[in-house]
Amino acid sequence: MPSAQLQPAFVLIRPQMGENIGAAARGMWNFGLDRMRIIDPRDGWPNQKAVAMASGAGRLLDEAQIFDDTAAAIADCDYVYATTARPRGLTKLVLSPEAAMQDARARIGQGQKVAVMFGPERSGMENDDIARANAIISVPVNPDFPSLNLAQCVLLTGYEWRREVVDVDASRVDAVGDWAEQIEIEKLSDHYEDRLQEAGFFYPEHKAENMKMNLRNMWSRMPMTRADVQMLHGMMRQMVRWKERG
Amino acid sequence: MPSAQLQPAFVLIRPQMGENIGAAARGMWNFGLDRMRIIDPRDGWPNQKAVAMASGAGRLLDEAQIFDDTAAAIADCDYVYATTARPRGLTKLVLSPEAAMQDARARIGQGQKVAVMFGPERSGMENDDIARANAIISVPVNPDFPSLNLAQCVLLTGYEWRREVVDVDASRVDAVGDWAEQIEIEKLSDHYEDRLQEAGFFYPEHKAENMKMNLRNMWSRMPMTRADVQMLHGMMRQMVRWKERG
Repeated sequence: MPSAQLQPAFVLIRPQMGENIGAAARGMWNFGLDRMRIIDPRDGWPNQKAVAMASGAGRLLDEAQIFDDTAAAIADCDYVYATTARPRGLTKLVLSPEAAMQDARARIGQGQKVAVMFGPERSGMENDDIARANAIISVPVNPDFPSLNLAQCVLLTGYEWRREVVDVDASRVDAVGDWAEQIEIEKLSDHYEDRLQEAGFFYPEHKAENMKMNLRNMWSRMPMTRADVQMLHGMMRQMVRWKERG
Repeated sequence: MPSAQLQPAFVLIRPQMGENIGAAARGMWNFGLDRMRIIDPRDGWPNQKAVAMASGAGRLLDEAQIFDDTAAAIADCDYVYATTARPRGLTKLVLSPEAAMQDARARIGQGQKVAVMFGPERSGMENDDIARANAIISVPVNPDFPSLNLAQCVLLTGYEWRREVVDVDASRVDAVGDWAEQIEIEKLSDHYEDRLQEAGFFYPEHKAENMKMNLRNMWSRMPMTRADVQMLHGMMRQMVRWKERG
């Protein structure tokens, strides 16, 4: 059973080596975090090398939730951080690990579900995944040697989480803000993308993919309530009706 | 040559596995630290496994100073920290990594020479070594799973050093880009309101004012860049074009 304390989920995106998954589990549990999600692990699941490396943190692997893709893994989350270098060409709030975990704690205190995503070891996070995040966590590494591995990145983020909650009872605030969940943002993105596609918005062809990503990135960056999402759906439906009336 | 910036030396006391020495070098250089001292490494020196693991941080191993014992390794230092669990039976100032690196920075600024000691992997630091330190650095780990390894301990301490010397949060906003001004949000609101009015979105009549206010409120609440605003204008223009084509 995961601990009762409310905390962010740590989401490993397509991790490659079992050893790194195990080391990430250790790094999480070193700082009292025990909600791991894993997207499409390269070598399948369960993974004996992960278990061997995790040793005392093996429970996190037993209880890890496995997902096919990023959208599914963060579907129930209200706010998602991506740990990555500053992305080129995507506009996104960039936070230090400390500022991010302060923010995460505040959100969790308001009843939001929060996740932190970590990219695959070698290739790093893809822009498609980054675009789904509400904010970036950027570790202030030496620019001449910025190569943090997965487990180190998990460790530092977990450390900042613990610094934030240690000695303090993470008491829950009852008033849950009516923020849209990630799945609702995803559906809104799909709706706009489909209709704008029909309307011929994604033009010229060679820019279409980039335009779609920018649009998705914008929606996920906006702090949206359920009511906002409903209104935006309604606006688009009305534009389509208007067109159909001719 | 070590970097010109004044910084603490990191002292590895009787490290056992070369891999851990290499990983410690990486962890140091990730955060711009490059003064490594090593006391009596178990497998001799140089160590090929250390070199293989250090990869991009190999220079630290080339330049590492090797000592026979702890007294010699810290002989030139004015102030020494020991990273270890809280010692039983020794009365000593205990600092968090953050407080310790703040203190270290202040001392270095006053011209003191400062070192941080790290114990051997398996056995931890001996009381003899701890007794030589002026203060203890204790990482706030989960008491149910306190097992940090050498490289992790180096990494976290290095991270706190860097947080101390780099103005991390100054970089919070600079990657976020070109925010739209209020007048641009206003024009976007007008554009959407006008077209949605034509399209018959604000219906029924007695709710129209409230719907318009909600929409305006939503736009002004969103953290929007110029690029977002342009994209949103473009989307609406395209929907209108689509309608007009019939």
